[in-house]
Amino acid sequence: MIIVMRAEATKEQLDDVVQGIKDLGYQAHVIFGSNCNVIGTVGDERHKHKLQSLEAFEGVEKVVPILKPFKLAGRELKKESSQVKINDKLSVGGKQLVIMSGPCSVESEEQIVATAKVVAKLGAHVLRGGAFKPRTSPYSFQGLEEQGLKFLKTASEETGLPFITEIMNPRDIDVICKYADILQIGARNMQNFSLLKEIGACKKPVFLKRGMSSTINEFLMSAEYIMAHGNERVILCERGIRTFEDATRFTLDLNAIPVVKRFSHLPIFVDPSHGTGHWYYVNALARAGIAVGADGLMVEVHLDPAKAASDGAQSLSEKNFAALMSDIKPFIQAAGRTL
Amino acid sequence: MIIVMRAEATKEQLDDVVQGIKDLGYQAHVIFGSNCNVIGTVGDERHKHKLQSLEAFEGVEKVVPILKPFKLAGRELKKESSQVKINDKLSVGGKQLVIMSGPCSVESEEQIVATAKVVAKLGAHVLRGGAFKPRTSPYSFQGLEEQGLKFLKTASEETGLPFITEIMNPRDIDVICKYADILQIGARNMQNFSLLKEIGACKKPVFLKRGMSSTINEFLMSAEYIMAHGNERVILCERGIRTFEDATRFTLDLNAIPVVKRFSHLPIFVDPSHGTGHWYYVNALARAGIAVGADGLMVEVHLDPAKAASDGAQSLSEKNFAALMSDIKPFIQAAGRTL
Amino acid sequence: MIIVMRAEATKEQLDDVVQGIKDLGYQAHVIFGSNCNVIGTVGDERHKHKLQSLEAFEGVEKVVPILKPFKLAGRELKKESSQVKINDKLSVGGKQLVIMSGPCSVESEEQIVATAKVVAKLGAHVLRGGAFKPRTSPYSFQGLEEQGLKFLKTASEETGLPFITEIMNPRDIDVICKYADILQIGARNMQNFSLLKEIGACKKPVFLKRGMSSTINEFLMSAEYIMAHGNERVILCERGIRTFEDATRFTLDLNAIPVVKRFSHLPIFVDPSHGTGHWYYVNALARAGIAVGADGLMVEVHLDPAKAASDGAQSLSEKNFAALMSDIKPFIQAAGRTL
Amino acid sequence: MIIVMRAEATKEQLDDVVQGIKDLGYQAHVIFGSNCNVIGTVGDERHKHKLQSLEAFEGVEKVVPILKPFKLAGRELKKESSQVKINDKLSVGGKQLVIMSGPCSVESEEQIVATAKVVAKLGAHVLRGGAFKPRTSPYSFQGLEEQGLKFLKTASEETGLPFITEIMNPRDIDVICKYADILQIGARNMQNFSLLKEIGACKKPVFLKRGMSSTINEFLMSAEYIMAHGNERVILCERGIRTFEDATRFTLDLNAIPVVKRFSHLPIFVDPSHGTGHWYYVNALARAGIAVGADGLMVEVHLDPAKAASDGAQSLSEKNFAALMSDIKPFIQAAGRTL
Repeated sequence: MIIVMRAEATKEQLDDVVQGIKDLGYQAHVIFGSNCNVIGTVGDERHKHKLQSLEAFEGVEKVVPILKPFKLAGRELKKESSQVKINDKLSVGGKQLVIMSGPCSVESEEQIVATAKVVAKLGAHVLRGGAFKPRTSPYSFQGLEEQGLKFLKTASEETGLPFITEIMNPRDIDVICKYADILQIGARNMQNFSLLKEIGACKKPVFLKRGMSSTINEFLMSAEYIMAHGNERVILCERGIRTFEDATRFTLDLNAIPVVKRFSHLPIFVDPSHGTGHWYYVNALARAGIAVGADGLMVEVHLDPAKAASDGAQSLSEKNFAALMSDIKPFIQAAGRTL
Repeated sequence: MIIVMRAEATKEQLDDVVQGIKDLGYQAHVIFGSNCNVIGTVGDERHKHKLQSLEAFEGVEKVVPILKPFKLAGRELKKESSQVKINDKLSVGGKQLVIMSGPCSVESEEQIVATAKVVAKLGAHVLRGGAFKPRTSPYSFQGLEEQGLKFLKTASEETGLPFITEIMNPRDIDVICKYADILQIGARNMQNFSLLKEIGACKKPVFLKRGMSSTINEFLMSAEYIMAHGNERVILCERGIRTFEDATRFTLDLNAIPVVKRFSHLPIFVDPSHGTGHWYYVNALARAGIAVGADGLMVEVHLDPAKAASDGAQSLSEKNFAALMSDIKPFIQAAGRTL
Repeated sequence: MIIVMRAEATKEQLDDVVQGIKDLGYQAHVIFGSNCNVIGTVGDERHKHKLQSLEAFEGVEKVVPILKPFKLAGRELKKESSQVKINDKLSVGGKQLVIMSGPCSVESEEQIVATAKVVAKLGAHVLRGGAFKPRTSPYSFQGLEEQGLKFLKTASEETGLPFITEIMNPRDIDVICKYADILQIGARNMQNFSLLKEIGACKKPVFLKRGMSSTINEFLMSAEYIMAHGNERVILCERGIRTFEDATRFTLDLNAIPVVKRFSHLPIFVDPSHGTGHWYYVNALARAGIAVGADGLMVEVHLDPAKAASDGAQSLSEKNFAALMSDIKPFIQAAGRTL
Repeated sequence: MIIVMRAEATKEQLDDVVQGIKDLGYQAHVIFGSNCNVIGTVGDERHKHKLQSLEAFEGVEKVVPILKPFKLAGRELKKESSQVKINDKLSVGGKQLVIMSGPCSVESEEQIVATAKVVAKLGAHVLRGGAFKPRTSPYSFQGLEEQGLKFLKTASEETGLPFITEIMNPRDIDVICKYADILQIGARNMQNFSLLKEIGACKKPVFLKRGMSSTINEFLMSAEYIMAHGNERVILCERGIRTFEDATRFTLDLNAIPVVKRFSHLPIFVDPSHGTGHWYYVNALARAGIAVGADGLMVEVHLDPAKAASDGAQSLSEKNFAALMSDIKPFIQAAGRTL
């Protein structure tokens, strides 16, 4: 932490702050500036929010954090990039670029099995599908719940694709872990800390989507929650942030990929479906996601988008998904990856 | 819904969309424009996301929602403003401007009892304090949990103030309902739909904070969730949204107060502590919140802010809270309210 | 500046940065931390962007500015709040709360004279009206230009109200200064530095609106531009910033008022017309602006809003402006101001 | 336009709005809905802001624009993508991916000539360099002005690279046109409509950067300004928008590339230097920009970034620029482009 004193702060106020820093167990180094004085603290900043409270002292202009607050998710303790093993044949974070595809919602056994076959045939590695759906409206389709999980399991068995599905309620952990290969935490639950803690205690890989207004720091702190509670198999996913631009549903923040790579060893995906919200933009942003260095893509596919129970506007039809899988190939190669 | 066709869309594409609308159970009215055609749909838009999927049809430029998606929270079905009864002596949403105050976190019995006495003496109507804390870092203080609830209950009994506390995990509903008078849903859980549904089934008033990147529409839809699941005693709270401005922790969106009042009958509070993030701005925004038409204020108070376990930088000391309670009096009167 | 070194930075890299700092004419103080080292610089940071370039050194994690970059606009050199004199009878920034009102655009002599009479009668102190209009579309009405200035002058003379009008092009300074009492710089030109410099050389009071995506720091730096070029009579105006919220045209950032008051001695207005974009929200936000500590309000008034050449949706009719002037009175009194 | 009436609007209010629409010269089509009525207008929406003012009528809930407001910049009148010719050997918007590189500011003749030689050798097609600089602080280096233009001309002649430089003040058009091959309009001047109009009257290609808080619609409307005033040789550039994320200087909005391509025939560049603000992220986002479909890149290069007069933190050294030019090659090929 750096504590910046106000220009007009008195010597007594400075001394009080220095004493306050010592009382919290840190060392204080004062730099006497030409306009104002600043105090650097030295010590373990794990409890940094206590230092933040120093702003309540008289004479303090502001308190500036210096260190990244994450440890387990950070590159300082673990320099090499992590791979997250999904099953004996599939890992995320290595040379292989991993594609997760499927519908937003599981609607029926026929639908999910047929979709799984299509995406498997076209080259996807993981099936996605929602059984418990976070819907903005209580009147929208809320998902098939455990029945949906069973349908996903059937589709998974028929195609050999492992499957990922979203978890919203800590009460559902057991039932979802019984079926799913990867647990997804959606953007709206990225800071549902109760859920993060309980997920930390389970043994499945976790796919953590960035909250739509979360900074990258907060994103990595949510990964830290899961890791600090015992589960290190975390895959990150950039899926668009909320900005003033309304031509797209969200603004896909591809800057976030190299930023995450700089600070964290965890693998990171890009979701161009949510990141744009319109099927006709998905292809271009999928290519960009590969080029910027993502470890994989999550893409929504629906065999009849206009009748989808949710997110039809951003879902690719079979034809469009086939085009995407073809169009990304040269970019996968350019990125030195394999499919 | 209004479906806007692309300028170059063919007659067949238009017909397909019209048929698609009919298939979903709506009527379609085509307006043939000079540049492009638009189709208005008539019918119950409760399942509006299905209509949104019409964007997947060839030739569709965009789909524009027209109706507000909320019903129970809206003014159309209930024109007069709602009052939410807290206990026999206190209601929210009437002429009385209600003040909820206390520390961010319950730290000890002594702390919360002493704080409760101070805020009661200075005119607060409800005691606030966190027992289960949503903290960005897993290494930060996470709250005293049930022990904290007991301390709050003691403080409540010693002062006669009802108390409000945050709920994060559906598993905690029973224990929190056993002690608390009002359940708070924090900004990070505003779209934790699992939690909203379960809260909808309980009988306590709910204090719902706006998510930091939630639109007002989404905010009211979260209220709708709780109401649709059976609990109509919802109090809203604007607490700042996330913007590019970093001089303050959040940007308090006071526009939201008259917007909510226009569309909803529910009472709404303002939280100038989170909305600014710095104690020295709280007073001014508290005054503004009253002037703009809020039904109450939530203000963080800590007797020793520099040693607060959380949010010390934005907490008012006793002296500063006393100043606030004095400074807001003429504005309460100007607003035609009582304290 | 604080230069934060990467955890793995070598001693040589640290030494290089220290030398780089000295080469730029600053002193360097190193704090050896437990996780990483930081370097504080001491010296005149007027050329701070050069220090920012230190980020290009190997081993540097980031460069954190500490000091506010403004001087003339800041409170450090001038502690007491400034008053800007408009004419012998009117000053901005004192006890009197100043109301500037009128149409978005001057449309005809009859219109502006009639409007001026209405707003004067209802208590406004300054007439506003645009003669040169910044319109998003080249096909929209662009203003009456010098003819509009003459109409404004006539309206001013008939009512005794001084008038304010926007300047967009440095080439128009002479003609506008010939007629207008106050020069307005619109939000879109807040960082039109060429214009700011030329305005700095003229002798009229300047009304500087905050850019819709400008931080408060940048806002004060634009004031600094005008002041550094010789014109200290700057009045600031918060008029809404751009956020994700689309229920209102902009998000009025009332936090900005106490922030500006903390760091600057300049007076600041609130514009609830642009800040909300809808006439039915103007009244509430005008009240809030007064309560939060603004020195005045700018409010758009049009005698027939539905036929306005621009901004009709946010303009108050005579009836609505009369209601506003009545409704704000108790808040002006509560704020210890006069009208 | 679609005018949505309030649910409780009376028949008289509806009739008034219909009459108002007719008075403005449009046809009105009413759709009688189950919850509320909506009115579609038919006619030339060139003066759309007048229709927006219909919101001032009693009973109107909101006014929703339907049509894109741009014509000359849009794809409806001109379906094929445009190429902008720079000189006999170079065009923008064709198969060739065009690289514009050089320092933020021209600092001396030696500096700009040496840099031009480096970027020419490494494959850049256009030299960039600022002679008139928009700086946030009046105390920062403001550029060498005409002397800088002469140095750029020398560097251009010695390397054969055409050069681009920023124009800020309409008064500088003649002098800049005398030397420069392409005129740049910076992000802060994207809505400096006076400048856009005057640029529209000159004969040089224009490089228009997106404002940091401008929607894509507004961006294309600024291009429309230039085109409507007579200059059709407009090249667009996405350079990052302002969001809450502070790990990067701006958030590069790569969604904008396919959105612009969908609605406009104009070529569009990506500027990963400003779009990230840190040299170590430029390479990844340059690759992404190519993959997403940009027609070229603008990249800041400085031979000694730590001593740059401006933007050193985001400038590539010779070594880093060489790495970038090498790394993008396979992506240019994957995109079906040539260098």
